[in-house]
Amino acid sequence: MLILGIDPGVATIGFGLVEAERANVRAVRYGVITTPAGLPLSTRLYQISQDMAELLRQFQPDEMAAEELFFSKNITTGIAVAHGRGVLLLEAERAGVPVFEYTPMQVKQAVAGYGGADKRQVMLMTQRLLKLKAIPRPDDAADALAIAICHGRSATSLLNMERKFDPKKYDTR
Amino acid sequence: MLILGIDPGVATIGFGLVEAERANVRAVRYGVITTPAGLPLSTRLYQISQDMAELLRQFQPDEMAAEELFFSKNITTGIAVAHGRGVLLLEAERAGVPVFEYTPMQVKQAVAGYGGADKRQVMLMTQRLLKLKAIPRPDDAADALAIAICHGRSATSLLNMERKFDPKKYDTR
Repeated sequence: MLILGIDPGVATIGFGLVEAERANVRAVRYGVITTPAGLPLSTRLYQISQDMAELLRQFQPDEMAAEELFFSKNITTGIAVAHGRGVLLLEAERAGVPVFEYTPMQVKQAVAGYGGADKRQVMLMTQRLLKLKAIPRPDDAADALAIAICHGRSATSLLNMERKFDPKKYDTR
Repeated sequence: MLILGIDPGVATIGFGLVEAERANVRAVRYGVITTPAGLPLSTRLYQISQDMAELLRQFQPDEMAAEELFFSKNITTGIAVAHGRGVLLLEAERAGVPVFEYTPMQVKQAVAGYGGADKRQVMLMTQRLLKLKAIPRPDDAADALAIAICHGRSATSLLNMERKFDPKKYDTR
């Protein structure tokens, strides 16, 4: 199963494509979509939608995974990220790719083995699981790969074979 | 000048089309776009994008106006609204409609005459300025009309004839 992990944003969106089959995961492609500061937000969102649509067209992932948004620190940044995230979810829907969401703790648990793992531990485990020679760069791409691995483990686990898509889980208000 | 005012959201998006020429404003159409709870967020965002694209195609507004987002109360709702707002800004950009943003205080100032006006005062003045027989319903549509009036007064004022679109003003990070 080909999974697209996404680390949402407006200035920088991380993406990571992972081929997953139970415990086995392999990196297919990773990187970032970026938009220049100084452009109107609407223009940047349009560029993101175009790049995301192209990514989905080229690689045709089976499913997409993104972290849920929590904002304890910077609400202003969070609001901007949510604008970008809306556009990314929209393009996935337009391309017919189901979207799954995980909490940061679920990602840490799935990749590093426990929910309290720090950022560096998650990155090192991402590198190890994908058998890469170094930690993937930039950080946004590494985060996206970690989310893809998390979904891969969940979606292709034998324990979850009966798992069905539950719309209620993804309802926001 | 035909202005589309937008009150963003995911469950309910208010829209208000106003023909503005300096102090004169006239309501052309107003209402709401709604999406059903229980659907995945990505599906709701897709429905919003389709309805918004249709609205822009039918009425071909010259410019769009939306309130800036501030979240002192409910961050979770704010995050959802920002997802929807991203999609609305995207569709405006796709249709080539410039987007302008105002703070809630600017809207109150422009419509009711002072920035400390309460919600009901703004609604009554919206009704009066547009010469409507009652306060527009639902509230989201009335809010959208107020934002359109605000932009109409700003964009068509003689004092602002030299006003140019400044991308920097709309940069988010």
